[in-house]
Amino acid sequence: MRRWRFSKGHGTQNDFVVLLDRDDVLAPSDDDVRWLCDRRAGIGGDGLLRVVAARHVPEWQGDPTLWFMDYRNADGSIAQMCGNGVRVFVRYLLDEGLATGPEVPVATRAGLKPASVLPDGRVRVGMGAVRVADSTVTVTTADGSVSTAVAVDVGNPHAVSLGSPVGALDLTRPPAWEPAGAFPEGVNLEFVETVGERHVAMRVFERGVGETRSCGTGTVAVAAAAGARAGGGDGVWTVDVPGGRVEVELAGGKAFLTGPAVLVAHGEVTLPDR
Amino acid sequence: MRRWRFSKGHGTQNDFVVLLDRDDVLAPSDDDVRWLCDRRAGIGGDGLLRVVAARHVPEWQGDPTLWFMDYRNADGSIAQMCGNGVRVFVRYLLDEGLATGPEVPVATRAGLKPASVLPDGRVRVGMGAVRVADSTVTVTTADGSVSTAVAVDVGNPHAVSLGSPVGALDLTRPPAWEPAGAFPEGVNLEFVETVGERHVAMRVFERGVGETRSCGTGTVAVAAAAGARAGGGDGVWTVDVPGGRVEVELAGGKAFLTGPAVLVAHGEVTLPDR
Repeated sequence: MRRWRFSKGHGTQNDFVVLLDRDDVLAPSDDDVRWLCDRRAGIGGDGLLRVVAARHVPEWQGDPTLWFMDYRNADGSIAQMCGNGVRVFVRYLLDEGLATGPEVPVATRAGLKPASVLPDGRVRVGMGAVRVADSTVTVTTADGSVSTAVAVDVGNPHAVSLGSPVGALDLTRPPAWEPAGAFPEGVNLEFVETVGERHVAMRVFERGVGETRSCGTGTVAVAAAAGARAGGGDGVWTVDVPGGRVEVELAGGKAFLTGPAVLVAHGEVTLPDR
Repeated sequence: MRRWRFSKGHGTQNDFVVLLDRDDVLAPSDDDVRWLCDRRAGIGGDGLLRVVAARHVPEWQGDPTLWFMDYRNADGSIAQMCGNGVRVFVRYLLDEGLATGPEVPVATRAGLKPASVLPDGRVRVGMGAVRVADSTVTVTTADGSVSTAVAVDVGNPHAVSLGSPVGALDLTRPPAWEPAGAFPEGVNLEFVETVGERHVAMRVFERGVGETRSCGTGTVAVAAAAGARAGGGDGVWTVDVPGGRVEVELAGGKAFLTGPAVLVAHGEVTLPDR
Protein backbone atom coordinates (compact mmCIF):
# COMPACT_ATOMS: atom_id res chain seq x y z
CA MET A 1 0.00 0.00 0.00
CA ARG A 2 1.38 3.37 -1.02
CA ARG A 3 0.56 6.42 1.10
CA TRP A 4 1.74 9.71 -0.34
CA ARG A 5 1.59 13.21 1.08
CA PHE A 6 -0.24 15.53 -1.30
CA SER A 7 -1.64 19.03 -1.60
CA LYS A 8 -4.45 20.36 -3.73
CA GLY A 9 -4.56 23.87 -5.09
CA HIS A 10 -5.64 26.01 -7.99
CA GLY A 11 -4.88 29.13 -9.98
CA THR A 12 -8.09 30.77 -11.22
CA GLN A 13 -9.72 27.35 -10.81
CA ASN A 14 -7.22 25.53 -12.99
CA ASP A 15 -6.55 22.91 -10.33
CA PHE A 16 -3.76 20.54 -9.47
CA VAL A 17 -2.64 17.77 -7.21
CA VAL A 18 0.81 18.63 -5.87
CA LEU A 19 3.21 15.86 -4.94
CA LEU A 20 6.53 16.49 -3.20
CA ASP A 21 9.04 14.01 -4.58
CA ARG A 22 12.33 15.72 -3.81
CA ASP A 23 14.54 12.73 -4.52
CA ASP A 24 12.54 11.40 -7.46
CA VAL A 25 11.63 8.14 -5.78
CA LEU A 26 7.81 7.98 -6.03
CA ALA A 27 7.78 7.22 -9.76
CA PRO A 28 4.05 7.76 -10.34
CA SER A 29 2.92 5.74 -13.34
CA ASP A 30 0.52 7.07 -15.94
CA ASP A 31 -2.17 5.08 -14.15
CA ASP A 32 -1.22 6.70 -10.85
CA VAL A 33 -1.48 10.17 -12.42
CA ARG A 34 -4.85 9.37 -13.94
CA TRP A 35 -6.07 8.05 -10.62
CA LEU A 36 -4.78 11.01 -8.60
CA CYS A 37 -6.47 13.40 -11.06
CA ASP A 38 -9.70 11.39 -11.17
CA ARG A 39 -12.29 13.68 -9.56
CA ARG A 40 -14.43 10.84 -8.22
CA ALA A 41 -12.23 7.81 -7.66
CA GLY A 42 -9.14 9.79 -6.60
CA ILE A 43 -8.33 13.34 -5.52
CA GLY A 44 -9.15 15.28 -8.69
CA GLY A 45 -7.32 17.88 -10.72
CA ASP A 46 -6.58 19.15 -14.19
CA GLY A 47 -3.06 17.85 -13.73
CA LEU A 48 -0.31 16.74 -11.37
CA LEU A 49 2.55 18.99 -10.27
CA ARG A 50 5.41 16.81 -9.07
CA VAL A 51 8.06 18.74 -7.14
CA VAL A 52 11.50 17.26 -7.83
CA ALA A 53 15.01 18.52 -7.01
CA ALA A 54 16.32 19.49 -10.45
CA ARG A 55 19.59 17.63 -9.93
CA HIS A 56 17.64 14.36 -10.25
CA VAL A 57 16.20 15.29 -13.65
CA PRO A 58 18.48 14.11 -16.49
CA GLU A 59 16.79 16.31 -19.10
CA TRP A 60 17.43 19.43 -17.01
CA GLN A 61 20.78 20.95 -17.99
CA GLY A 62 20.52 24.14 -15.94
CA ASP A 63 21.05 25.06 -12.29
CA PRO A 64 20.81 21.80 -10.30
CA THR A 65 19.78 23.59 -7.11
CA LEU A 66 16.39 24.63 -8.53
CA TRP A 67 13.08 22.83 -8.19
CA PHE A 68 11.86 21.09 -11.32
CA MET A 69 8.15 21.15 -12.15
CA ASP A 70 7.21 17.75 -13.57
CA TYR A 71 3.80 18.62 -14.98
CA ARG A 72 1.54 15.79 -16.02
CA ASN A 73 -1.84 16.17 -17.65
CA ALA A 74 -4.82 14.45 -16.05
CA ASP A 75 -4.61 11.74 -18.73
CA GLY A 76 -1.08 10.87 -17.59
CA SER A 77 0.69 12.47 -20.53
CA ILE A 78 3.67 14.78 -20.10
CA ALA A 79 3.29 18.51 -20.71
CA GLN A 80 5.97 21.12 -21.28
CA MET A 81 4.51 23.89 -19.21
CA CYS A 82 1.38 25.20 -17.55
CA GLY A 83 1.03 28.90 -16.83
CA ASN A 84 -1.46 28.51 -13.99
CA GLY A 85 0.38 25.45 -12.71
CA VAL A 86 3.64 27.34 -12.24
CA ARG A 87 1.94 29.76 -9.90
CA VAL A 88 0.55 26.95 -7.77
CA PHE A 89 3.97 25.28 -7.86
CA VAL A 90 5.62 28.46 -6.55
CA ARG A 91 2.94 28.92 -3.88
CA TYR A 92 3.62 25.36 -2.74
CA LEU A 93 7.40 25.94 -2.53
CA LEU A 94 6.82 29.05 -0.44
CA ASP A 95 4.21 27.53 1.87
CA GLU A 96 6.33 24.47 2.50
CA GLY A 97 9.50 26.46 3.11
CA LEU A 98 11.21 24.97 0.06
CA ALA A 99 11.90 28.44 -1.36
CA THR A 100 12.06 31.84 0.23
CA GLY A 101 11.16 34.27 -2.57
CA PRO A 102 10.34 36.81 -3.68
CA GLU A 103 12.20 35.50 -6.75
CA VAL A 104 11.51 31.80 -7.38
CA PRO A 105 12.92 30.55 -10.68
CA VAL A 106 11.33 27.26 -11.72
CA ALA A 107 12.91 24.57 -13.88
CA THR A 108 10.43 23.20 -16.44
CA ARG A 109 10.55 21.12 -19.59
CA ALA A 110 10.08 24.39 -21.46
CA GLY A 111 13.18 25.83 -19.80
CA LEU A 112 13.75 28.17 -16.90
CA LYS A 113 10.64 30.13 -15.93
CA PRO A 114 11.31 33.21 -13.81
CA ALA A 115 8.65 33.68 -11.16
CA SER A 116 8.20 36.00 -8.24
CA VAL A 117 5.69 36.39 -5.46
CA LEU A 118 4.09 39.79 -4.96
CA PRO A 119 3.34 41.38 -1.59
CA ASP A 120 -0.38 40.63 -2.10
CA GLY A 121 0.37 36.93 -2.53
CA ARG A 122 -0.13 36.73 -6.27
CA VAL A 123 2.56 35.08 -8.37
CA ARG A 124 4.08 36.60 -11.50
CA VAL A 125 5.55 34.28 -14.12
CA GLY A 126 7.60 35.03 -17.20
CA MET A 127 5.75 33.22 -19.97
CA GLY A 128 8.29 33.86 -22.73
CA ALA A 129 7.64 35.04 -26.25
CA VAL A 130 4.18 35.69 -27.66
CA ARG A 131 3.58 36.38 -31.33
CA VAL A 132 0.38 37.57 -33.01
CA ALA A 133 0.14 36.26 -36.57
CA ASP A 134 -1.24 38.04 -39.62
CA SER A 135 -3.58 35.18 -40.37
CA THR A 136 -7.16 34.83 -39.25
CA VAL A 137 -9.73 32.08 -39.25
CA THR A 138 -13.51 32.17 -39.13
CA VAL A 139 -14.86 30.46 -36.01
CA THR A 140 -18.40 29.12 -35.62
CA THR A 141 -19.69 27.99 -32.23
CA ALA A 142 -22.37 25.37 -31.64
CA ASP A 143 -25.05 28.05 -31.35
CA GLY A 144 -24.18 29.35 -34.81
CA SER A 145 -22.30 32.45 -33.72
CA VAL A 146 -19.62 33.41 -36.24
CA SER A 147 -16.49 35.42 -35.46
CA THR A 148 -13.09 36.18 -36.90
CA ALA A 149 -10.15 34.96 -34.84
CA VAL A 150 -6.52 35.98 -35.07
CA ALA A 151 -3.84 33.33 -34.67
CA VAL A 152 -1.49 33.77 -31.71
CA ASP A 153 1.54 31.65 -30.87
CA VAL A 154 2.39 31.33 -27.16
CA GLY A 155 4.47 28.20 -27.67
CA ASN A 156 1.14 26.51 -28.29
CA PRO A 157 -1.43 27.61 -30.88
CA HIS A 158 -4.34 29.92 -30.12
CA ALA A 159 -7.05 31.64 -32.15
CA VAL A 160 -8.56 34.70 -30.48
CA SER A 161 -11.98 36.13 -31.40
CA LEU A 162 -12.23 39.71 -30.19
CA GLY A 163 -15.11 42.00 -29.61
CA SER A 164 -18.41 40.15 -29.19
CA PRO A 165 -20.32 39.36 -26.00
CA VAL A 166 -19.25 35.92 -24.84
CA GLY A 167 -21.75 35.06 -22.10
CA ALA A 168 -24.29 33.33 -24.30
CA LEU A 169 -21.93 31.31 -26.51
CA ASP A 170 -22.52 27.57 -26.52
CA LEU A 171 -19.14 25.99 -25.80
CA THR A 172 -20.53 22.65 -24.69
CA ARG A 173 -19.58 21.32 -28.11
CA PRO A 174 -16.43 22.04 -30.13
CA PRO A 175 -16.48 25.16 -32.30
CA ALA A 176 -15.39 24.78 -35.93
CA TRP A 177 -12.95 26.97 -37.84
CA GLU A 178 -12.41 27.79 -41.52
CA PRO A 179 -10.16 27.12 -43.28
CA ALA A 180 -10.19 23.80 -41.46
CA GLY A 181 -6.58 23.16 -42.45
CA ALA A 182 -5.28 26.23 -40.63
CA PHE A 183 -4.56 24.27 -37.46
CA PRO A 184 -3.90 20.65 -38.40
CA GLU A 185 -3.00 19.79 -34.79
CA GLY A 186 -5.94 21.67 -33.31
CA VAL A 187 -6.02 25.03 -31.60
CA ASN A 188 -7.15 26.63 -28.37
CA LEU A 189 -10.04 29.00 -29.05
CA GLU A 190 -10.59 32.17 -27.04
CA PHE A 191 -13.68 34.40 -27.18
CA VAL A 192 -13.21 37.88 -25.82
CA GLU A 193 -15.33 40.91 -24.99
CA THR A 194 -14.16 44.31 -23.82
CA VAL A 195 -14.95 45.18 -20.22
CA GLY A 196 -13.07 48.45 -19.87
CA GLU A 197 -9.82 50.20 -20.62
CA ARG A 198 -7.23 47.44 -21.20
CA HIS A 199 -9.66 45.08 -19.50
CA VAL A 200 -11.28 42.11 -21.24
CA ALA A 201 -13.34 39.07 -20.29
CA MET A 202 -12.81 35.76 -22.03
CA ARG A 203 -14.01 32.22 -22.34
CA VAL A 204 -11.79 29.45 -23.68
CA PHE A 205 -12.29 26.15 -25.44
CA GLU A 206 -9.09 24.15 -24.94
CA ARG A 207 -8.16 21.65 -27.62
CA GLY A 208 -8.70 18.10 -26.50
CA VAL A 209 -10.41 19.24 -23.30
CA GLY A 210 -13.42 21.49 -23.86
CA GLU A 211 -14.39 24.70 -22.11
CA THR A 212 -12.29 25.30 -19.01
CA ARG A 213 -12.37 27.77 -16.15
CA SER A 214 -9.00 29.18 -17.10
CA CYS A 215 -6.06 28.75 -19.48
CA GLY A 216 -2.80 30.54 -18.69
CA THR A 217 -1.40 30.70 -22.21
CA GLY A 218 -4.89 31.62 -23.40
CA THR A 219 -4.92 34.75 -21.26
CA VAL A 220 -1.55 35.70 -22.71
CA ALA A 221 -2.81 35.11 -26.26
CA VAL A 222 -5.88 37.24 -25.56
CA ALA A 223 -3.85 40.13 -24.15
CA ALA A 224 -1.47 39.99 -27.12
CA ALA A 225 -4.32 39.97 -29.63
CA ALA A 226 -6.11 42.80 -27.83
CA GLY A 227 -2.85 44.74 -27.65
CA ALA A 228 -2.24 44.26 -31.36
CA ARG A 229 -5.73 45.46 -32.22
CA ALA A 230 -5.25 48.48 -29.94
CA GLY A 231 -2.27 49.42 -32.10
CA GLY A 232 0.38 47.21 -30.61
CA GLY A 233 2.71 48.34 -27.95
CA ASP A 234 3.37 47.17 -24.47
CA GLY A 235 1.38 47.45 -21.29
CA VAL A 236 -0.70 45.61 -18.74
CA TRP A 237 -4.02 43.95 -19.56
CA THR A 238 -6.54 42.72 -17.05
CA VAL A 239 -8.11 39.47 -18.21
CA ASP A 240 -11.19 37.98 -16.55
CA VAL A 241 -11.63 34.25 -16.98
CA PRO A 242 -14.57 32.22 -15.62
CA GLY A 243 -12.35 31.10 -12.72
CA GLY A 244 -10.99 34.49 -11.70
CA ARG A 245 -8.84 37.38 -12.84
CA VAL A 246 -5.25 37.66 -14.03
CA GLU A 247 -3.01 40.39 -15.39
CA VAL A 248 -0.86 40.04 -18.45
CA GLU A 249 2.06 42.40 -19.02
CA LEU A 250 3.39 42.65 -22.56
CA ALA A 251 6.92 43.93 -22.90
CA GLY A 252 9.05 43.71 -26.01
CA GLY A 253 7.36 40.63 -27.42
CA LYS A 254 7.43 38.80 -24.11
CA ALA A 255 4.60 38.21 -21.66
CA PHE A 256 4.38 38.07 -17.90
CA LEU A 257 1.33 36.51 -16.28
CA THR A 258 0.30 37.55 -12.76
CA GLY A 259 -2.48 35.82 -10.89
CA PRO A 260 -3.64 34.15 -7.70
CA ALA A 261 -2.46 30.76 -6.53
CA VAL A 262 -3.99 29.05 -3.56
CA LEU A 263 -3.48 25.75 -1.78
CA VAL A 264 -6.70 24.57 -0.25
CA ALA A 265 -5.82 21.23 1.30
CA HIS A 266 -2.94 19.08 2.45
CA GLY A 267 -3.12 15.44 3.36
CA GLU A 268 -2.22 11.86 2.73
CA VAL A 269 -3.59 9.78 -0.11
CA THR A 270 -3.70 6.00 -0.27
CA LEU A 271 -3.10 4.80 -3.81
CA PRO A 272 -4.81 1.64 -5.02
CA ASP A 273 -2.64 -1.42 -5.50
CA ARG A 274 -1.60 -2.17 -9.05
CA MET B 1 -9.03 31.18 9.14
CA ARG B 2 -10.82 27.85 9.52
CA ARG B 3 -8.84 24.63 9.14
CA TRP B 4 -10.91 21.48 9.21
CA ARG B 5 -9.88 17.85 9.14
CA PHE B 6 -11.54 16.06 6.22
CA SER B 7 -11.57 12.79 4.35
CA LYS B 8 -12.55 12.04 0.78
CA GLY B 9 -14.07 8.79 -0.33
CA HIS B 10 -16.49 7.19 -2.71
CA GLY B 11 -18.91 4.31 -3.21
CA THR B 12 -18.93 3.17 -6.86
CA GLN B 13 -17.58 6.64 -7.71
CA ASN B 14 -20.39 8.50 -6.00
CA ASP B 15 -17.97 10.65 -4.02
CA PHE B 16 -18.08 12.61 -0.80
CA VAL B 17 -16.21 14.93 1.47
CA VAL B 18 -16.41 13.56 5.02
CA LEU B 19 -16.26 15.93 7.95
CA LEU B 20 -16.05 14.76 11.55
CA ASP B 21 -18.08 17.17 13.67
CA ARG B 22 -18.81 15.08 16.73
CA ASP B 23 -20.07 17.92 18.89
CA ASP B 24 -21.85 19.84 16.13
CA VAL B 25 -19.65 22.91 16.38
CA LEU B 26 -18.35 23.45 12.83
CA ALA B 27 -21.70 24.72 11.48
CA PRO B 28 -20.79 24.60 7.77
CA SER B 29 -22.90 27.12 5.90
CA ASP B 30 -24.45 26.41 2.51
CA ASP B 31 -21.56 28.36 1.01
CA ASP B 32 -19.08 26.22 2.91
CA VAL B 33 -20.72 23.05 1.60
CA ARG B 34 -20.71 24.33 -1.96
CA TRP B 35 -17.07 25.29 -1.61
CA LEU B 36 -16.01 21.97 -0.07
CA CYS B 37 -17.80 20.10 -2.88
CA ASP B 38 -16.43 22.41 -5.61
CA ARG B 39 -14.16 20.18 -7.65
CA ARG B 40 -11.82 22.99 -8.71
CA ALA B 41 -11.90 25.68 -6.06
CA GLY B 42 -12.33 23.30 -3.11
CA ILE B 43 -12.01 19.57 -2.47
CA GLY B 44 -14.74 18.17 -4.68
CA GLY B 45 -17.56 15.74 -4.15
CA ASP B 46 -21.16 14.90 -4.97
CA GLY B 47 -22.00 15.79 -1.40
CA LEU B 48 -20.83 16.30 2.15
CA LEU B 49 -21.16 13.68 4.88
CA ARG B 50 -21.00 15.38 8.25
CA VAL B 51 -20.47 12.96 11.14
CA VAL B 52 -22.31 14.19 14.21
CA ALA B 53 -23.07 12.54 17.54
CA ALA B 54 -26.83 11.93 17.31
CA ARG B 55 -27.47 13.39 20.76
CA HIS B 56 -26.70 16.82 19.30
CA VAL B 57 -29.32 16.54 16.56
CA PRO B 58 -32.70 17.87 17.74
CA GLU B 59 -34.62 16.24 14.89
CA TRP B 60 -33.26 12.81 15.84
CA GLN B 61 -35.61 11.13 18.31
CA GLY B 62 -33.93 7.74 18.40
CA ASP B 63 -30.90 6.26 20.14
CA PRO B 64 -28.68 9.23 21.14
CA THR B 65 -25.53 7.08 21.17
CA LEU B 66 -25.57 6.58 17.38
CA TRP B 67 -23.78 8.62 14.74
CA PHE B 68 -26.00 10.89 12.69
CA MET B 69 -25.31 11.30 8.97
CA ASP B 70 -25.91 14.93 8.05
CA TYR B 71 -25.93 14.58 4.28
CA ARG B 72 -25.73 17.74 2.22
CA ASN B 73 -25.91 17.90 -1.55
CA ALA B 74 -23.11 19.65 -3.43
CA ASP B 75 -25.41 22.67 -3.87
CA GLY B 76 -25.68 23.03 -0.09
CA SER B 77 -29.21 21.70 0.18
CA ILE B 78 -30.21 19.09 2.74
CA ALA B 79 -30.96 15.53 1.65
CA GLN B 80 -32.79 12.81 3.49
CA MET B 81 -30.58 9.90 2.59
CA CYS B 82 -27.95 8.68 0.18
CA GLY B 83 -27.48 4.97 -0.39
CA ASN B 84 -23.88 5.19 -1.53
CA GLY B 85 -23.14 7.84 1.06
CA VAL B 86 -24.18 5.63 3.96
CA ARG B 87 -21.58 3.05 2.94
CA VAL B 88 -18.83 5.64 2.88
CA PHE B 89 -20.11 7.00 6.20
CA VAL B 90 -19.86 3.53 7.76
CA ARG B 91 -16.42 2.95 6.28
CA TYR B 92 -15.30 6.24 7.84
CA LEU B 93 -16.65 5.29 11.27
CA LEU B 94 -14.81 1.98 11.12
CA ASP B 95 -11.52 3.39 9.81
CA GLU B 96 -11.49 6.13 12.43
CA GLY B 97 -12.37 3.79 15.28
CA LEU B 98 -15.71 5.52 15.88
CA ALA B 99 -17.59 2.26 15.48
CA THR B 100 -16.53 -1.35 15.76
CA GLY B 101 -18.94 -3.27 13.53
CA PRO B 102 -19.86 -5.54 12.02
CA GLU B 103 -23.29 -3.99 12.73
CA VAL B 104 -23.26 -0.20 12.38
CA PRO B 105 -26.71 1.37 12.59
CA VAL B 106 -26.74 4.90 11.20
CA ALA B 107 -29.08 7.72 12.19
CA THR B 108 -30.32 9.66 9.15
CA ARG B 109 -33.06 12.14 8.34
CA ALA B 110 -34.87 9.20 6.74
CA GLY B 111 -34.71 7.27 10.01
CA LEU B 112 -32.49 4.52 11.31
CA LYS B 113 -30.57 2.73 8.56
CA PRO B 114 -29.17 -0.64 9.55
CA ALA B 115 -25.74 -1.24 8.05
CA SER B 116 -23.12 -3.90 8.42
CA VAL B 117 -19.63 -4.45 7.13
CA LEU B 118 -18.87 -7.73 5.38
CA PRO B 119 -15.64 -9.71 5.76
CA ASP B 120 -14.57 -8.52 2.27
CA GLY B 121 -14.91 -4.88 3.31
CA ARG B 122 -18.12 -4.14 1.46
CA VAL B 123 -20.93 -2.47 3.36
CA ARG B 124 -24.54 -3.66 3.37
CA VAL B 125 -27.29 -1.15 4.03
CA GLY B 126 -30.99 -1.65 4.63
CA MET B 127 -32.63 0.71 2.15
CA GLY B 128 -36.20 0.23 3.35
CA ALA B 129 -39.28 -0.37 1.25
CA VAL B 130 -39.27 -0.48 -2.53
CA ARG B 131 -42.46 -0.57 -4.56
CA VAL B 132 -42.86 -1.21 -8.28
CA ALA B 133 -45.89 0.63 -9.66
CA ASP B 134 -48.33 -0.56 -12.31
CA SER B 135 -47.84 2.59 -14.32
CA THR B 136 -45.35 3.10 -17.13
CA VAL B 137 -44.09 6.07 -19.09
CA THR B 138 -42.50 6.31 -22.52
CA VAL B 139 -38.96 7.67 -22.33
CA THR B 140 -37.09 9.26 -25.23
CA THR B 141 -33.38 10.01 -24.96
CA ALA B 142 -31.55 12.78 -26.83
CA ASP B 143 -30.49 10.34 -29.57
CA GLY B 144 -34.12 9.49 -30.24
CA SER B 145 -34.15 6.07 -28.56
CA VAL B 146 -37.59 5.25 -27.20
CA SER B 147 -38.29 2.85 -24.33
CA THR B 148 -41.02 1.98 -21.87
CA ALA B 149 -40.17 2.62 -18.24
CA VAL B 150 -41.88 1.31 -15.14
CA ALA B 151 -42.32 3.62 -12.16
CA VAL B 152 -40.57 2.52 -8.96
CA ASP B 153 -40.78 4.20 -5.57
CA VAL B 154 -37.70 3.91 -3.34
CA GLY B 155 -38.66 6.87 -1.19
CA ASN B 156 -37.76 8.94 -4.23
CA PRO B 157 -39.23 8.47 -7.71
CA HIS B 158 -37.60 6.36 -10.42
CA ALA B 159 -38.57 5.23 -13.90
CA VAL B 160 -36.75 2.11 -15.10
CA SER B 161 -36.41 1.14 -18.77
CA LEU B 162 -35.55 -2.53 -19.06
CA GLY B 163 -34.13 -4.59 -21.81
CA SER B 164 -32.27 -2.53 -24.39
CA PRO B 165 -28.51 -2.03 -24.85
CA VAL B 166 -27.55 1.09 -22.93
CA GLY B 167 -23.98 1.78 -24.06
CA ALA B 168 -24.85 4.05 -26.99
CA LEU B 169 -27.59 6.14 -25.34
CA ASP B 170 -27.00 9.88 -25.37
CA LEU B 171 -27.51 11.00 -21.77
CA THR B 172 -25.63 14.28 -22.17
CA ARG B 173 -29.01 15.99 -22.37
CA PRO B 174 -32.16 15.28 -20.35
CA PRO B 175 -34.42 12.51 -21.65
CA ALA B 176 -38.13 13.30 -21.96
CA TRP B 177 -41.05 11.19 -20.77
CA GLU B 178 -44.69 10.86 -21.77
CA PRO B 179 -47.13 11.58 -20.28
CA ALA B 180 -45.12 14.58 -19.15
CA GLY B 181 -47.39 15.02 -16.11
CA ALA B 182 -46.54 11.61 -14.70
CA PHE B 183 -43.71 13.01 -12.56
CA PRO B 184 -44.48 16.64 -11.80
CA GLU B 185 -41.45 16.89 -9.49
CA GLY B 186 -39.12 15.09 -11.89
CA VAL B 187 -37.85 11.54 -11.82
CA ASN B 188 -34.61 9.61 -11.85
CA LEU B 189 -34.34 7.64 -15.08
CA GLU B 190 -32.58 4.29 -15.29
CA PHE B 191 -31.71 2.41 -18.48
CA VAL B 192 -30.99 -1.27 -18.05
CA GLU B 193 -29.68 -4.17 -20.09
CA THR B 194 -29.39 -7.79 -19.08
CA VAL B 195 -25.86 -9.11 -18.58
CA GLY B 196 -26.61 -12.55 -17.19
CA GLU B 197 -28.73 -14.47 -14.76
CA ARG B 198 -30.01 -11.92 -12.22
CA HIS B 199 -27.28 -9.60 -13.44
CA VAL B 200 -27.94 -6.27 -15.15
CA ALA B 201 -25.98 -3.21 -16.26
CA MET B 202 -27.47 0.25 -15.95
CA ARG B 203 -26.95 3.91 -16.66
CA VAL B 204 -28.77 6.59 -14.74
CA PHE B 205 -29.87 10.15 -15.38
CA GLU B 206 -30.47 11.76 -11.99
CA ARG B 207 -33.04 14.52 -11.80
CA GLY B 208 -31.46 17.89 -11.36
CA VAL B 209 -27.97 16.48 -11.89
CA GLY B 210 -27.52 14.62 -15.17
CA GLU B 211 -25.85 11.30 -15.86
CA THR B 212 -23.90 10.06 -12.85
CA ARG B 213 -21.48 7.22 -12.20
CA SER B 214 -23.80 5.65 -9.67
CA CYS B 215 -27.09 6.15 -7.82
CA GLY B 216 -27.82 3.98 -4.80
CA THR B 217 -31.60 4.19 -4.86
CA GLY B 218 -31.40 3.78 -8.64
CA THR B 219 -29.75 0.38 -8.30
CA VAL B 220 -32.50 -0.65 -5.90
CA ALA B 221 -35.19 0.55 -8.31
CA VAL B 222 -33.56 -1.36 -11.15
CA ALA B 223 -33.34 -4.60 -9.18
CA ALA B 224 -36.96 -4.27 -8.11
CA ALA B 225 -38.14 -3.61 -11.66
CA ALA B 226 -36.08 -6.49 -13.01
CA GLY B 227 -37.37 -8.73 -10.25
CA ALA B 228 -40.95 -7.77 -11.01
CA ARG B 229 -40.47 -8.50 -14.69
CA ALA B 230 -38.91 -11.87 -13.84
CA GLY B 231 -42.13 -12.77 -12.08
CA GLY B 232 -41.57 -11.05 -8.78
CA GLY B 233 -40.17 -12.76 -5.79
CA ASP B 234 -37.13 -12.17 -3.71
CA GLY B 235 -33.47 -12.72 -4.35
CA VAL B 236 -30.15 -11.08 -5.04
CA TRP B 237 -29.43 -9.01 -8.15
CA THR B 238 -26.01 -7.93 -9.33
CA VAL B 239 -26.16 -4.40 -10.74
CA ASP B 240 -23.29 -2.88 -12.73
CA VAL B 241 -23.15 0.90 -12.76
CA PRO B 242 -20.56 2.98 -14.64
CA GLY B 243 -18.67 3.46 -11.36
CA GLY B 244 -18.59 -0.14 -10.21
CA ARG B 245 -20.76 -3.04 -9.08
CA VAL B 246 -23.27 -3.47 -6.30
CA GLU B 247 -25.65 -6.18 -5.14
CA VAL B 248 -29.28 -5.62 -4.27
CA GLU B 249 -31.16 -8.12 -2.17
CA LEU B 250 -34.94 -7.99 -2.32
CA ALA B 251 -36.77 -9.54 0.60
CA GLY B 252 -40.43 -9.07 1.40
CA GLY B 253 -40.75 -5.66 -0.23
CA LYS B 254 -37.57 -4.35 1.34
CA ALA B 255 -34.18 -3.85 -0.24
CA PHE B 256 -30.62 -4.24 0.99
CA LEU B 257 -27.82 -2.64 -0.96
CA THR B 258 -24.29 -4.05 -0.73
CA GLY B 259 -21.31 -2.38 -2.30
CA PRO B 260 -17.79 -1.06 -1.92
CA ALA B 261 -16.86 2.00 0.07
CA VAL B 262 -13.37 3.41 0.06
CA LEU B 263 -11.66 6.36 1.67
CA VAL B 264 -8.85 7.61 -0.54
CA ALA B 265 -7.48 10.60 1.32
CA HIS B 266 -7.37 12.30 4.70
CA GLY B 267 -6.13 15.77 5.39
CA GLU B 268 -6.74 19.30 6.46
CA VAL B 269 -8.59 21.89 4.42
CA THR B 270 -8.36 25.64 4.79
CA LEU B 271 -11.70 27.28 4.14
CA PRO B 272 -11.86 30.72 2.57
CA ASP B 273 -12.87 33.58 4.82
CA ARG B 274 -16.46 34.72 4.50
